[in-house]
This record gives sequence, structure tokens and C-alpha cells, in this order.
Amino acid sequence: MDFDLKMTLDTLWVILGGILVFWMQAGFAMVETGFTRAKNAGNIIMKNLMDFALGSIIYWILGFGLMFGDSFHGIIGTSMFLGGGDLGNGIEPNAFMFFQVVFCATAATIVSGAMAERTKFSAYLIYSFIISAVIYPISGHWIWGGGWLSDLGFHDFAGSTAVHSVGGWCALIGATILGPRIGKYGKDGKPNAIPGHSLTLGALGVFILFMGWFGFNPGSSLSATDTKLNALVIMTTALAASAAAVSTMFITWVRYKKPDVSMTLNGVLAGLVGITAGCDAVSIPGAIIIGVIAGFVVVFGIEFVDKVLKVDDPVGAVGVHCLCGVWGTLAVGLFATDGGLFYGGGFKYFFIQLLGVIAVAAWSICTSFILFKTIKATIGLRVSREEEIRGLDIEEHGLESSYADFLSSDINI
Amino acid sequence: MDFDLKMTLDTLWVILGGILVFWMQAGFAMVETGFTRAKNAGNIIMKNLMDFALGSIIYWILGFGLMFGDSFHGIIGTSMFLGGGDLGNGIEPNAFMFFQVVFCATAATIVSGAMAERTKFSAYLIYSFIISAVIYPISGHWIWGGGWLSDLGFHDFAGSTAVHSVGGWCALIGATILGPRIGKYGKDGKPNAIPGHSLTLGALGVFILFMGWFGFNPGSSLSATDTKLNALVIMTTALAASAAAVSTMFITWVRYKKPDVSMTLNGVLAGLVGITAGCDAVSIPGAIIIGVIAGFVVVFGIEFVDKVLKVDDPVGAVGVHCLCGVWGTLAVGLFATDGGLFYGGGFKYFFIQLLGVIAVAAWSICTSFILFKTIKATIGLRVSREEEIRGLDIEEHGLESSYADFLSSDINI
Amino acid sequence: MDFDLKMTLDTLWVILGGILVFWMQAGFAMVETGFTRAKNAGNIIMKNLMDFALGSIIYWILGFGLMFGDSFHGIIGTSMFLGGGDLGNGIEPNAFMFFQVVFCATAATIVSGAMAERTKFSAYLIYSFIISAVIYPISGHWIWGGGWLSDLGFHDFAGSTAVHSVGGWCALIGATILGPRIGKYGKDGKPNAIPGHSLTLGALGVFILFMGWFGFNPGSSLSATDTKLNALVIMTTALAASAAAVSTMFITWVRYKKPDVSMTLNGVLAGLVGITAGCDAVSIPGAIIIGVIAGFVVVFGIEFVDKVLKVDDPVGAVGVHCLCGVWGTLAVGLFATDGGLFYGGGFKYFFIQLLGVIAVAAWSICTSFILFKTIKATIGLRVSREEEIRGLDIEEHGLESSYADFLSSDINI
Repeated sequence: MDFDLKMTLDTLWVILGGILVFWMQAGFAMVETGFTRAKNAGNIIMKNLMDFALGSIIYWILGFGLMFGDSFHGIIGTSMFLGGGDLGNGIEPNAFMFFQVVFCATAATIVSGAMAERTKFSAYLIYSFIISAVIYPISGHWIWGGGWLSDLGFHDFAGSTAVHSVGGWCALIGATILGPRIGKYGKDGKPNAIPGHSLTLGALGVFILFMGWFGFNPGSSLSATDTKLNALVIMTTALAASAAAVSTMFITWVRYKKPDVSMTLNGVLAGLVGITAGCDAVSIPGAIIIGVIAGFVVVFGIEFVDKVLKVDDPVGAVGVHCLCGVWGTLAVGLFATDGGLFYGGGFKYFFIQLLGVIAVAAWSICTSFILFKTIKATIGLRVSREEEIRGLDIEEHGLESSYADFLSSDINI
Repeated sequence: MDFDLKMTLDTLWVILGGILVFWMQAGFAMVETGFTRAKNAGNIIMKNLMDFALGSIIYWILGFGLMFGDSFHGIIGTSMFLGGGDLGNGIEPNAFMFFQVVFCATAATIVSGAMAERTKFSAYLIYSFIISAVIYPISGHWIWGGGWLSDLGFHDFAGSTAVHSVGGWCALIGATILGPRIGKYGKDGKPNAIPGHSLTLGALGVFILFMGWFGFNPGSSLSATDTKLNALVIMTTALAASAAAVSTMFITWVRYKKPDVSMTLNGVLAGLVGITAGCDAVSIPGAIIIGVIAGFVVVFGIEFVDKVLKVDDPVGAVGVHCLCGVWGTLAVGLFATDGGLFYGGGFKYFFIQLLGVIAVAAWSICTSFILFKTIKATIGLRVSREEEIRGLDIEEHGLESSYADFLSSDINI
Repeated sequence: MDFDLKMTLDTLWVILGGILVFWMQAGFAMVETGFTRAKNAGNIIMKNLMDFALGSIIYWILGFGLMFGDSFHGIIGTSMFLGGGDLGNGIEPNAFMFFQVVFCATAATIVSGAMAERTKFSAYLIYSFIISAVIYPISGHWIWGGGWLSDLGFHDFAGSTAVHSVGGWCALIGATILGPRIGKYGKDGKPNAIPGHSLTLGALGVFILFMGWFGFNPGSSLSATDTKLNALVIMTTALAASAAAVSTMFITWVRYKKPDVSMTLNGVLAGLVGITAGCDAVSIPGAIIIGVIAGFVVVFGIEFVDKVLKVDDPVGAVGVHCLCGVWGTLAVGLFATDGGLFYGGGFKYFFIQLLGVIAVAAWSICTSFILFKTIKATIGLRVSREEEIRGLDIEEHGLESSYADFLSSDINI
């Protein structure tokens, strides 16, 4: 054999996983645009595209090194800038880089949903750039780059915390500083629903994300040859998402009298985010329970953000990515068949998971607070009142409408 | 080598195939919602999502065991409940389970298209659950689980009968018992076309299904290492679908004076369903002929259901899945290069295929008849007249519109 | 081991690559329909579907042999008709055929975008058939089939010239002969923008194409075991596209005062087309530079076609596929780390690339000129004025509207 068989197979696995994770960009684009208004559709597409385009380049230049370079006291990577290098993990370096690039883009893109319909495009480019370049890679280093959290035994297989919570916390801070959309809260402070323009595109986005997650989670094994693990991961992923969808549907049925479509779609994502940390470490029944609880987390979490915090998150990104990311990470400490509390492992594992959650939350909240406040104080974070009302498509991009012909009166002429 | 190479490769193949088959859920969702009216779009999405979510869990608990457990006289599986087990087929058990879960979901989702726009959501959940739990697995046992049909030599490589006809017969019975949509048949009994709300989403769905079928058929070899077979299957699948599309287009051109778009899209699916049983057993020219004939089956089949049976099938699911599933299964007896009638094998193979078609039809028709009649007599199968007119989105899900913002008058404000 | 390991892996790679390239058909369908008007949506879907359906069959019958059969003096293949044969390249023949079939369909489908909204459907079928059967395969033979260009050392790894430029030149000639859409050019000769009906579908199409390109480029290595190459290709592809998106965005920002959404989407495709020839031969920084320049090529190229040539290309296919295909092919001569001008290789490589570009341009221009002129003189190339105004959906396909229900007034009844 004139090739390294294990490396070939593992690299193949990582490349295929990375392609599926890349595909999640389309999923986020469809979810975010479908669940918001037509007058901002082009702007949202543009943001989703540019966080990948800008982010992938800066991550290749800087982020990867901060995340996977030689560790400075477990805090930050200090080498492998400008294109990475061989980590000796048995994956062809450029394939591993690709996998990391698409992961980074996932974290970055989460923020855009929560801040949709009122954020300046130039501000978006800047914060998206900083998240990809610095914020995500540094906490990523702690967890996956040989940093202090991984030394403690913190377990986050595919990124409930490393990806989703980081994105989710930044989203929460960003949406808070940005303030709600015009008309979101009445004079009495009660939230109004602002329906999106295409539930079908939003649903398509959820299906795309579900599919992409089969690269996100199983791909994170970084090994095609560990078939037992990969097969477990694909089943825990599938059934946690299914359980969360079922759970969300019934919760909304009881709570709102009718099974809610868009909440159930978010329920799928909640289950996926929730299982991401422990998809390799829990049993299938454990995954189903994690999913069921993720359904509760997302329903009550989105309500909490909306009604109590009064933070306007148009697509529910905080509830899905931040809160279910937290839940999924803690759940590892409870449900891990090796060392989890419910399997006789005591509280230690749970507390390590909790510590990781808190540390990453603190990091994400502080850095994104500084970031968004700085942008607000300099170039400004939010579009003008007129622009928000007319829509970002026309004001930010000179785009009459994303559906110009469709909405013109002479469609059948 | 510290891993089982053949098992690694075959499991990889099955996982990738399963991911593509999962993706077909998105295809069905887009086809069914695109080809029906906007006022029911959210409901259809919800049904497509829930048949996977509920079905995957119940199949994992019960269906798999009925299908692949130790056989009770070739009729029903009796072991491997609650998570399956090792069948000794060289595939990692959880990966094989995943592949079977997504197959089951395909059968279940077919029904929703034929019964769209007038079925109670709660009734849908129940019958979808029963199909995944019992109906599909038991006939599946006969064909793929070591049951009596497989003992006879019945050949259904990837499920023209096991998946598509089962779903298609249930769809036919369900749509018949349910009755047509309001306005579908005039006072003179003549059918009216009720156009869908987005041909582009419907077409996207067909492309998704076409792509997914490259997991459905080649994946069914359960082996990456049988490259000759896999490569044949991918070509027979591609060219049968192409031939059916061409054939359908020309048939409609002659028959309706113009090449019909939505029928040609159904033609693609007809070719795919038609080749599914024999994609491994026929030559490429054989596949092309099977596809051409599938074009006739779908055009005249849909007309027959619509005009003669007067069964209202909004998306043509019966014509596509039931009739082309039958055709594809019989075609194996004719075109199989090893034993088919046209290759000198005599009638025996054909009659075994015919027997399988009849047996599975009888099973699906009887069980789904009992199922739908029971639901009708208890909780009811159909929404009220007002609800049907106003749309299922608002009445069943409290969803103002799937396109609320898009259709509001102030879109450009 | 009872199977040929290398062949198994390489065939697996080619099949997976082919599935992703097939998926690009959906991407083209969404891009072309999204960027054009609703009244022609069904027609565009139908054309995209049929170029695959018809093209795949004729390519299997005739095209493959012309492209890969025994070479007649390096000009044309003369064997392996009706289903191909074993080229001895270590890929299972039917898998290699599948990969080539989906490549051919890509070339054919490019043309439909440039000629959208005014071409007779019957004329489309004929020219699409001829391109797949003869035009694409013969120049393909020169480059990939052991023909004279490959003998000279012409390098086109995945088809900047062999696929994209061929499609792009045919598109240019076709659109020129066809003439602009009614209303495209004012009395003063100035172009008017004719906005499409769904930017979101167009954007989805771009994401699909981006994903599909990860099959198009890496798959072209025809080898899973050359991991170093595959990993490089996936990164050069990703970052060239990203760089082109960033570059296009900033160019339009400067030039039009605002970052343009649809041009930036085309920028992604420009980067992908531009890196296709040299994705295996350049470094990652080289790929980024190629992408940046592709952004300039596509912006100024589309303007040039629109304003100077006054050729009406509704989706910018000429700028993207033809011009960036030319650029990408020439860029190999400049940026190839082994032999490129900028790496001390002198001008020889560049001139060979230039020769290939010119030869394939001459071939495509001449044959497509004859083809389109012949169609125009016989059955006619263009629909009538009334048909163009009413829309091709109703006139060519009897389709009231692709969004009939959606646009009806009683949507909420």
C-alpha cells in the first residue's frame, strides 16, 4: 500500500464532515431570512455570506493559530498562524483546517440572527470579523486546543459550548446593546410577534441544519475508523433532535393550545444543540431525554428572553444556541455513561462542565460587550429609524426588493 | 491495522447513504408544500417534520424489532426491540439502525402528500405513528428481514415495494376515506386543478429527492467495497430518472399539447421509484426502458386516480409511489439480467415479483383501511369545512400565515 | 482482503464527488429562476431539468466516447460509445461515467441562464442536446481525453476551461444571436436592470453551488488516497471563493456606493470558477489572490457584457463562467507553484494556457454560432413578442403561474 490508510480514511471523514458543516451556512441563511421580514432578506443573505467569506480568511490567517497553536499556559495558542500546520492528529493539515474553518463560521453566523433587521452592515462585518479572529478561537483553545479546560477534563465533543454557546452569548449581548426592533415592544412593554416572510424557507433551513449536523457531530470524531463511536453519534444526534421536536410540539400544544410550527422548528435545533456536547458520551435513551428537556429549555428560554429580559431576538438564537448549548454541556455531567452523575459518577464531572460553561460565558459576555460597545461608540451599531422602517435591503444595499418582480403589479403581463 | 477495514468502509457507506436518505425528508417537505396552497404550508411542514421525529423514535423502540428481529415463521420479527442489535451483516449496528430509521421515515412521509390540505393534525400524528411502528416494519420483515417473501426469492433492492408501494397504498386508502378537498370535483364530477403555491419550491424538492436517491439506492448495497455494484446502481438510478423525465415530458407534450412542468417533475420521481427495486439487477439500457415506461405509468396513473377513481391526491403521490412502485417491482421480473423474462429466465421470477406486489398491497390496504376507519370513527380524520376553507395553518397551528409579512400590504414601508 | 482497496476508495471518492456535482443542477436551477422573473420560473426549472435528463442519456450514448474514446490524432475520441468502458484509471467504469455525466450537465446548464426568458423551449432542447452530445465532449477530449492540449501540458484540473468557458462561450454566442429581452435596452441604448423574482432562492442556489463545488474540484483528483492533494484543493476552493466574495463586495461598495447583494453572490461563483483550473496547482495565498482578481473580472466583465457588448445575459453567466473561466485558466500559468510565471517558471506555461483558452474559445464560438444560426433559420430560436410579454410559463407550458395560488386574491379565505 503506497498510502497511509488510516490517514486517508480519517481525512476523508473530516472532509465530508466539513462539507456538511459548510452546508449549515445555507441553513442559517434560510432560517434567518425566512423568519424575518422580506424588506431585509437581501441584507441577511449578505451577512450570512460574508461571515463565512471574511471569517474563513481571517481564521486561516489568525484564528487557527490562536486556537490550535502552541499553548501559552493553557490560555491562548501562539503559533501556526498563516495557514496552520500539522498537529500530528493523523488528519491531513489542510483538511483539518477546512473542518475548523467551517466550525468557526458556524459560531459567527449565530449572532446575525439575533441582531437581524436593525444592525448596520459595516458594523456587522467588523464584529463578525472579530468573533472569527479572536473571540471564538481563544475559548476554543481552552476546550479543543489543549487549553486549561481540556486539561481539567471538560467535555464538549462537537461544541455545545465551544461553538453554540459562544455564538449564543455574543448574540445575547449584541441584541441587548442593539435594542429591540421598532414596534417589537408596545408602550406597556409587552412583546409583539413580528412574523417572518417565509416559513417554508425557514423550515428548509432547519432541514439543512439537521442534515449538516450529521457532519458537525460525527465528523468531530476526526476518525472514520472509530465506527462504533461514529454510529453512536449519528443515532444520538438523530434521536435527540427528534425527541426535542416532539417535546417542543407537545409543550406548545399544551401552553398555546395549538402545536406551534416555528417553535417546533426551533425545537429541532434545540435538540441538536443540546446533544452536541455529549453525543459521543451518552446512551441513546440518554440522548432522547436530553432532547426532551431541550424542548423545555427552548420554549421557556425563548419566552424568558422575549418577555422577561425583553431582548428582541428575531429568530430565537439565544434560546436555541446559548441556552441549549449550556444545557447540553451540563447534561454531559449528568448523562455521560462514563462518569456522569446519573451513572454513579458523582458531582465532579458536572461541576467541571459547569465551570466550563461559566468560564466561556464570562469570556464571551465580556469580550462581546467590549466589542459591541466599542462599535456603538465609534461607527455606530444600528441603522437609522427611517432605514429600519424602509428596510435594510434598499438602504444598505441599494436593493429595491429581494422580490422586486414578484411583487410588481404586472406579474402576469 | 487496529480496525476492521471492511466494516469501517461499509459502515461509512451506510452512514453517508443514510444522511442522503434523511435529506429526502426535506425534499418531500418542499414537494408537498410547493404543490399545495399557501394557507396550508405550515401544516405540511409540521407533518413532514413530525413523521420523522415521532417515527424515528417509535421505529427505534418497536419497528426495527418487528422488521429485523428473529422471525416468527417468516411473518414478523420478535426480538431486538428498544434499540436493535447486531445482525451480523458487517455494519456497525447503530449505523444500520440509522439507515433503517431514515428509510422508515420515507415510507411514512409519502402518505402526507396524498392527504394534504384537509387532514386533522392529531389524526396525522396517530396514523403516521402506526405506519412507522407496525405497518411498514411488518411487510418490511417479509422482504428485508428474512421473512417469507425473501425466502421465495422476491427481489426489491432498495424498496420500490417495501417503501414506496407501502406508503403509496396507505396514501390511496387514506385519501379515499378522507374524501376530496372542497372544490376539487365539480357538480358534474369533473376534477378541477387546484394549483400549488410555489412550483419553484416543489422543483427544489424534486432535486433534493433526486440527490437523496443516490443514498437510497447505492446505500442499499450496504457495502462500499462492492464497487461494481455501487457504480452500476448509481448509473441505473440516474438514467432511469432521466429517461422517465424525458418520457413524461414528451407524453404530456403530445397529450396536453404543451410539455407540462409539474408532471415532468413527477416524472423524475416516477423513474426513481421505478428503478428502485431493480437498480442492482438490470442493465443500463434496461434501466432506461424502465424509466421510459415509468413516465407512462405516472401520467396515466395520476389521470386514472384523478378522473376515474376520483380520489383527490394533491401531489400525485399514489401515481408516483404506489403505481411506479408496483411497476418497478414487476420490472425486475422482466428486465433482471439474471433470471428476468426478457433475458430468457421464464415467467417464474415475474410471478414471484407479482406475488410480492399483491401480498404487500393486501397488507397495506387492509391495515391502513382499518387504521383510517378507526381514526375516522373516533377522533375524526378530517378538519371542519370552515377550517379547510380558512386553511389548516391558522386553525390547526394558530399560524396567521406562513408568509405573513410577505403578504402584508406594508412590505416596502 | 477480497477487494481492491485503492479502487474501492477512489471509486467511493468519485461517486461522492459526482453526487455533489449533480447537486449543482439544483443550484443552477435556483440561481437562474431566482434571478429572473416569476412569469418564466416554470420554464427555467424545466430547462434545467431537461438539460440533465436529455444530456445524461446522450452523453452516455455518444458524448463519453467522443471525449474518452481512442484518440484520432488528439482531436476526437472514436470508441467507447454506448456506455463507455474501462479507461484503466483505477475507477470503476460506471462510477467514472457518472462523474463525467454530471460534469457534462454542468456545462450544458450554464447556457440556459444567459438565454433565459425569451428562448423557445424546443430550441433549447435541441441546442442543449448538441452541446452535451458533441461540443462539450470534443473540446473535453483535447483537455481530459488524452487529446492535443493535454499533450502540450495544458492544465485544467477541474474545468475552468473544459466546463465553464465552454458553457460560457456558448452562452455568449447564444445570447448575442437571440438578442436582448424586450425592455432591456432603452431607446438611448442604455441597459435597464430587470430584477429577478426571488433573491433568496438565488442565494440558496449560490450556496448549493458552493457546496457542490466541493465535489467538483476535490472529486476531480479521482483519488481518495491522494489526501494531501484533496485537502489542498478543498482549501484553495473555499478560500478563493471567499476572497472573491469579499473582493466583489468591496468593489461594488466603492463603485456603486453600496455593497451589492446579487453581484456579491455572483462573486462567489466567480471565485469558484476562477480557482477550478488551478485548485491543485497553486498555494493557498495564490488561491486567495486568484479569488480577489476574479472579483474584479466578474464586476467589470458583467458590466462590459451589459454596457459595451450590449448582450443581455439575465444572470451574468458570461461574466461568471466564460470570463472567470478564462482568468482561472490563465492564472495557472502565473500562480502554479510548479512552473508558474510568478514562481520562476517563465512564460512557457502561461502561453500554453493561453493557447488552450484560445483554441477552446474558437471551437465553442464557431460550433455554437453554427448551431444557434441553424436553429434560428429553421425552427426559430426565440418566442414571439406576445409570448415573451405574457411569460414563457403560460405560453410554452400551459402553466398559469408557478405561484398561482400564492398570487390569487383569496389566499386567506
